[in-house]
Amino acid sequence: MATTNTTATDGVPFIDITREFDAPREIVWRAWSEPELVKQWLGPNRYEMVIEEYDVRDGGRYRYVHKDPDSGNEYGFHGVFHGTPSPDSFVQTFEFEGAPGHVSLEKLVLEDLGGGRTRAVMHSVYQSVEARDAMVASGMETGLNEGFARLDTLLESLTSPVH
Amino acid sequence: MATTNTTATDGVPFIDITREFDAPREIVWRAWSEPELVKQWLGPNRYEMVIEEYDVRDGGRYRYVHKDPDSGNEYGFHGVFHGTPSPDSFVQTFEFEGAPGHVSLEKLVLEDLGGGRTRAVMHSVYQSVEARDAMVASGMETGLNEGFARLDTLLESLTSPVH
Repeated sequence: MATTNTTATDGVPFIDITREFDAPREIVWRAWSEPELVKQWLGPNRYEMVIEEYDVRDGGRYRYVHKDPDSGNEYGFHGVFHGTPSPDSFVQTFEFEGAPGHVSLEKLVLEDLGGGRTRAVMHSVYQSVEARDAMVASGMETGLNEGFARLDTLLESLTSPVH
Repeated sequence: MATTNTTATDGVPFIDITREFDAPREIVWRAWSEPELVKQWLGPNRYEMVIEEYDVRDGGRYRYVHKDPDSGNEYGFHGVFHGTPSPDSFVQTFEFEGAPGHVSLEKLVLEDLGGGRTRAVMHSVYQSVEARDAMVASGMETGLNEGFARLDTLLESLTSPVH
């Protein structure tokens, strides 16, 4: 499996993540921008994923809920897309509904590596270093890696010739 | 005139601003959240201010344009309000349309100082230290101070007894 590189430098409120995918840039972009594909990979393995809204345009909102089938707990997330969404710049705010008004600002850039491969470069900015540290401490990396592994599988199905 | 304290610490992407106003918190909040009042003070002195949209609710958009009457140049700004807007937490994104997709995240808290006085505490987060530095270098403080001086005058008119 490909490696996820996560950087969270002391004293600045950033999280920087890179991950390579064995699929062309336009396919990776579809998996990130089309809700019926996003719901197949985003988030930890153990939750059911429900996307209520995913309106990819400047000022468009999204909201999704991770549902824990064991406990019945639900975790809602929402935000707003900014700028003109494209593989060169996909900017959105991100808010966990368990901590309303605490917002981070996320940017994704998809780099064409040639040979049908793509690097996702993610830059997140938090309102404080403490909020950034809390996100890192929350175990986000596990959920991220589980999601990216499912994304690998999804991308493989999207790029395979139909038999 | 009251002093505006601006802090932009080296190496972190924050701008922190505090300013005291000689008006009760609920009046200062009105001046910040009602577009017909906002248009009377926000921005540098020399521009005409046109507010096209100012929808103060979670996910609501705003857009305004500063028009330079001498050159005819127009400078557009827009963003989205986040969380439940209140004097305790007024969170919004901010984007200058001359640099699309470059977004900052702004938070305002209005503190009741007693005796009919209020302190505005503003915390801005940029996507990079370089973007923060460019904002500081743009002469934002002049525009800010001109706007706050007009806000002082507006607050005085809103708090004065009608003769």
